[in-house]
Formats: sequence, structure tokens, C-alpha cells
Amino acid sequence: MSVTAAEGFTAAGVAAGLKSAAPDGARPRDVALVLNHGPDKHAAAVFTTNRVAAAPVLWSQQVISDGRADAVVLNSGGANACTGAPGFADTHQTAEYVAEKLQATGAEVSAGDVLVCSTGLIGERLDMPALLGGVASAVTELNPDDAAGQRAAQAIMTTDSVMKISSASGAEFTVGGMAKGAGMLAPGMATMLSVVTTDAVIAQADLDAALREAVRLSFNRADSDGCMSTNDTVIAMASGAHPQADPSGVDLAEFQAALNQVCQDLAAQLIADAEGAHHEIAISTVNAATEEQAETASRSVARSNLFKTAIFGQDPNWGRILSAVGTTDVDFDPSTIDVAVNGVWVCRAGGIGDERSLVDLSGRHVKVVIDLKSGGAEATILTNDLTHDYVHENSAYST
Amino acid sequence: MSVTAAEGFTAAGVAAGLKSAAPDGARPRDVALVLNHGPDKHAAAVFTTNRVAAAPVLWSQQVISDGRADAVVLNSGGANACTGAPGFADTHQTAEYVAEKLQATGAEVSAGDVLVCSTGLIGERLDMPALLGGVASAVTELNPDDAAGQRAAQAIMTTDSVMKISSASGAEFTVGGMAKGAGMLAPGMATMLSVVTTDAVIAQADLDAALREAVRLSFNRADSDGCMSTNDTVIAMASGAHPQADPSGVDLAEFQAALNQVCQDLAAQLIADAEGAHHEIAISTVNAATEEQAETASRSVARSNLFKTAIFGQDPNWGRILSAVGTTDVDFDPSTIDVAVNGVWVCRAGGIGDERSLVDLSGRHVKVVIDLKSGGAEATILTNDLTHDYVHENSAYST
Repeated sequence: MSVTAAEGFTAAGVAAGLKSAAPDGARPRDVALVLNHGPDKHAAAVFTTNRVAAAPVLWSQQVISDGRADAVVLNSGGANACTGAPGFADTHQTAEYVAEKLQATGAEVSAGDVLVCSTGLIGERLDMPALLGGVASAVTELNPDDAAGQRAAQAIMTTDSVMKISSASGAEFTVGGMAKGAGMLAPGMATMLSVVTTDAVIAQADLDAALREAVRLSFNRADSDGCMSTNDTVIAMASGAHPQADPSGVDLAEFQAALNQVCQDLAAQLIADAEGAHHEIAISTVNAATEEQAETASRSVARSNLFKTAIFGQDPNWGRILSAVGTTDVDFDPSTIDVAVNGVWVCRAGGIGDERSLVDLSGRHVKVVIDLKSGGAEATILTNDLTHDYVHENSAYST
Repeated sequence: MSVTAAEGFTAAGVAAGLKSAAPDGARPRDVALVLNHGPDKHAAAVFTTNRVAAAPVLWSQQVISDGRADAVVLNSGGANACTGAPGFADTHQTAEYVAEKLQATGAEVSAGDVLVCSTGLIGERLDMPALLGGVASAVTELNPDDAAGQRAAQAIMTTDSVMKISSASGAEFTVGGMAKGAGMLAPGMATMLSVVTTDAVIAQADLDAALREAVRLSFNRADSDGCMSTNDTVIAMASGAHPQADPSGVDLAEFQAALNQVCQDLAAQLIADAEGAHHEIAISTVNAATEEQAETASRSVARSNLFKTAIFGQDPNWGRILSAVGTTDVDFDPSTIDVAVNGVWVCRAGGIGDERSLVDLSGRHVKVVIDLKSGGAEATILTNDLTHDYVHENSAYST
């Protein structure tokens, strides 16, 4: 179940011709639209912190500033990043066109409440006639059923091999979501985009806080190759349309748990679909002084090319793990740190531990545990190995 | 000319059996010794800032603390990192043995003035009988001629395909140096080691300051894969033995320039010898607010796997350059930044610039210029592309 799992939303995913046709001539979907029918139009969003933000990010930051959004339009086949004022005008025109077409159907939508997301190659203008044609077609295909939600999820795929969708429900609400990209294939162009919908009755400030917490614990802990996109965007929209909704508001703890679950599921799917990767790696740092320190230590290992190539080579090279942790300022004593790879404590007390030949790295899943012995906090970062396919995909992408 | 270019130094490089024999049975050199005969024994050193520092780093930090060193012993074939107290004892024993053997030849050397450097795989103990045998043999082969200096440079090679040596002279001094490693093949295990000698008459504090400035402008601006070794060490030793030396001290500006030249030459040789690399890339940031900001911007690009794979694919993907600069906090306006790749300004004012097909990336040398338009400072970082050979070498190394 995708973004239409929640009541009050319709979606569409169409082929507008922004992406190349398949060898058999089939046109892949490349324009998605999600419409919130209300009664509430609460929305929140988290954007890339890259200062070279794409035009749709700059636009959507303005749209979201009042906490309301009526619709989201997303396209693959072009990131509309580093395109200057003309690129921003393209985004603006897209939002205007979405509003115009929706208004013609009787929907109450203003252009200033239409979020825009784009993903694809940086530094090229979008094919606007194709994109606007896709918008017109998507408006006519908006549907509340599950298949429509899945078509929207398909339309935002770039190098993704499968769509990413997830949902969770409570007694008084449902959360549905879709995501695309990241993975290690090409996050710098592929971008991570996600739209999460809910029919919960929830104040905008609560939705905003819940989204930031969920993103912190999910997408921000999936670190495929350390590169930050110009387009990353995560959007949450709440309609308040659940039939059993308590008008006084959802149970916030229950809602947070469901939102975390959907976002963590989507983040795990992103890492799992890194086609160039041979291993999905979970790096857990335990017994850290703080959760932030645990995250810092895990992320430093996740960003070490030497560690990531070692895992590709099925080599439990714990020295590279220690070396990566040693570049951070987290609290630990190099003479007491322990490291396990797939259950074998190959490093004990900062030195040689159990027999490294006992480590089995033939499977796809790798679990690294780093015990800092400095406190009681922990955090896990998900990443991939660095493979020939990563080099191939990313060296061949735009040429 | 290597470390024996300067008067007052002898060197040796011998095969001790720490490294595997070549297919034809030839034993590669793997133990080097450099002895300062004085009259001065001034020394300075810069070490890795990795908190997981190898035993020889911990030892040498103690040795250098009084600003005096009599000799340096270096081995390849093992890093002696993450080896705990037994590894430290091995280093200590090595220094004691060097001093003992040198004393037997009449040299005035104490173990507490013997620097130790090691390079090779992390997390394994050294073969001490082999190493000590190499030390004994190296002591008998110490020689002031150029060939001996070159043998020392050969003995510290790991994945290096050629030795790295350099020298420069002034009216009253000569500077000679050798280096190994980094390169992109496996800096996390290969380590960057360098020993620079001079016969200048120079106060220890001046030598220390000159070395730190030279390292800042050379080795610290060669960033192959962003990984920091547990063993990186750069050592400078001054004998004051130049026949025309002014007893009141060398011209410090002239000495600094020569030392910078030698260190920059060695750093460039390290980047040039990254066998896995197909391109040597110089990333210059110009018109930055400060030199530090210029370095930060260039280094962020040098560490982007997406940029490095694009160059491997001969793709002047300037969007990935902007995206990397956008993750920093340096002063720049995304709407005015310009980027040139091999002389073609592919990005102007943050958007599409001159025709990218004009960029010729078929050669080995790549020059990126990032114009921040925020001031008058500049800095250049040297790096390599990310290739299939990098993945291959680093995934296959220890298994």
C-alpha cells in the first residue's frame, strides 16, 4: 500500500516522455501527482541541506512555509538543479499548471500550495511541454485506489529497480508512503524523494515535529555513499479524513511509532535496492556516551571507502573499522574497543580478537557492531559495499 | 637524490623477509635505516591525527618530544597497528636493537632517540626475528652515497610501483627526502611515510615550524581517498653538517622554500603513483574568502565518490562539483559560482556554461578550477579518480 492507503488522497503516475523509452518501446512512468482532498490540508517537509538546492526545493520551501499543501507533483527524468532563474520559472510554471488543471476538475487548489519534486540529471533544463502534458494526463487519472498509489511510486523511479512503498495503521489513522532513489547507484543525481500521507487528525506543528523525528531515525541513517543530493525532499501530508478519527487529535505516540515504521521501512528498501551493491551493511555502535556519538562513529565507518571495498571483497578487515572510528571525536579508548562482524568479535580490546576466518561474508547482509564501552547509547547506520558496479554505474551515467 | 643528499647522513635499505618474495624468488627490500651523524641531532615530526595510532607512532611521539633524534628505522610488510601492548613492546625492542647495533659500530645513539615507522597490514604482529635480522644487516650497510639513499626509499615501498625521492639545495644547505604510500591503492594500510633530511644549521624550533608549514602545503593537500591512516608520519632531521653552513643559522625563508619544494614534489609523486587511478586531478578553488575555505571547498570535491567516478568515465559532470561545494559552509553564492574543467567553463553563474563536449578528459591530468567570487584566497588539493582498479586492489588486499 502506497500514498493512497490513507483516506482523503488520490494519486496518479503517468508516462510523459521525460525518461527514455525502454528497448521494447515502452514508455516508463515519469510524472506523479498526489492530491489531498482534506478536510485538513496540513503538511510538513524536510529538505536537503545542500546549499546548491535545486529549483523545486527552493519552490517547495516557500510552499511549505505556511504548513499547508494541497498537492505534490513529482517528476523523474530531470533534477532541474543548477538551472538558475529559468529553472525556477519552470518549477513555478509546473505548479501553476497543476493548480489550473485541478481547479478545472472542481478541486480547491492554489499554485502556492502545490509542492514540486524533481529527480534526474543535474544541470539540464526540463522538457516542459512533455512535463506539462504529463501533468494534464495525471490529473485525469487521479484515483484513490491502491493501484494508483503504486503507479505514482513507479513514476518517481530513476535507477531504482523496484518501487518503494509502505504503510502502517493505528485505530484512528493510516500512514502510507512511497520513496525513490538514493541507493548507491547515483544519489547525487538520483536523489532521495519520499511522500508520506496520513488521514490522522493532527495539528500541523505536531505533524512537522513527528516528521523530523522520523526522518532523523530513518532516511538520515541510510548513508549509501556520503554524497548529498541537491534535491532530497521528504513530505508529509495529513487529511484528517479517517472515518474513526478522534476530532480532538490522534494519539501522538502511536502516530510517531507508525510514521517511524513507514520511514524506516522505506529507508531499508532504498539501501536494499542499491543494485550496484553486493552487501547491505548495518553498522551499529553500542555503549556510546550519547546517541549522537553512536551515530557519528557508525557514519564514519559507513563513509570509509576502504571499509566498503573490504566488505565487497568479503574481507572482515576490522583494522579499517577502527581506523575510521579513530578519525572521530567520540568518547572511546582505543585499548578497550571491541568490534564484531557478523557475530564474530574479530577485535577485542583494540587488538586481535577471535579468528577472522570464522566470519562469513558470503551472504548479502552484514552486521557490524562497534562496542565503545563509554555509555549506554546506540545507533545504527545502513550502508552498502563499494563495488565495481558502483564505479561502472556512476562513471557511465550522464555520457 | 634521496635522504643522503644532505651531508651528515647515511642510509641503508635491506631485504629482511617481512614482505613476500617476488615470483622469481627475489626478496624485496623491507627495512630501511637513516642515521644522523651530526654534529646537530635536531628533529621534528608530524603524525597522523587518527586516535587509533599505531605502536610506532605512539613510540615516535615520545622520542620526538625532546626535539632530538639520532636515527630512524622503517619497515614495510606490517603496520604494527591495533596490536596492543605486545605491539608496542615490539616497537620498543626494535629501537633498542637499533641503538645496540649502532653503538657497537661506535655511533652515539640511545634507544630513546630512535624513531620507528611501520607500514603494511593493520591488526597483525610483526615477524620480529626477521625485522631484527634486517636491522643488523642494515647497520652494516649504512652508506652516505646516493645509491644507499635510494635503497632506503625502495625498502619503504608497499603498493608503490616506484620509489619517491626528491632534493633541493640552497647556498648553505641541501634538503633530501623520500616517501612512500598513500596513492589511492590502499592508504589505510599502505600509510604515508616520509623522511626528510637537511644539513642546514637550524634551531629545532625553526625546523619544527618549517616542517609543519611544509606538510600543510604538501602532504595535507594530497587527498587520495579521504581515509586517514593509523601510521602516517613525516620526519625531518637536521645535521648542521653542510660545509658552507653559516654557524649562525640558515636563511629561514630560503630553507622553507626548499623544504616546501621537496615535500610538494614527494606529495605529487604519491598521487602520480596511484596505480589504480587513471587520472591525476588538481582541484583549485580560487577567489575564496580565506585559504582555509579554498582548501575546504577543494577537499569536499576531492572526497566525492560521485565526482571521482565521473572523471573516471571522462564525464565533466560539473553538477557533482557544485553539489560537493554545496555541502560545505564556505562563503559563496550558488547563483554566481563558476567551474572550469580542463580550461572549459562548463558552469557559469551556478548554471549551464560553455559546451561540456569541449572538455577533453582523455589525458591523465585533470585540472578543476572553482571560482567562488568571495575573496582573493586560493588552494589546490591533489586527488585521483575512483576506478575499477581501486575497488579491485582494496577489496583483494588482505585476503
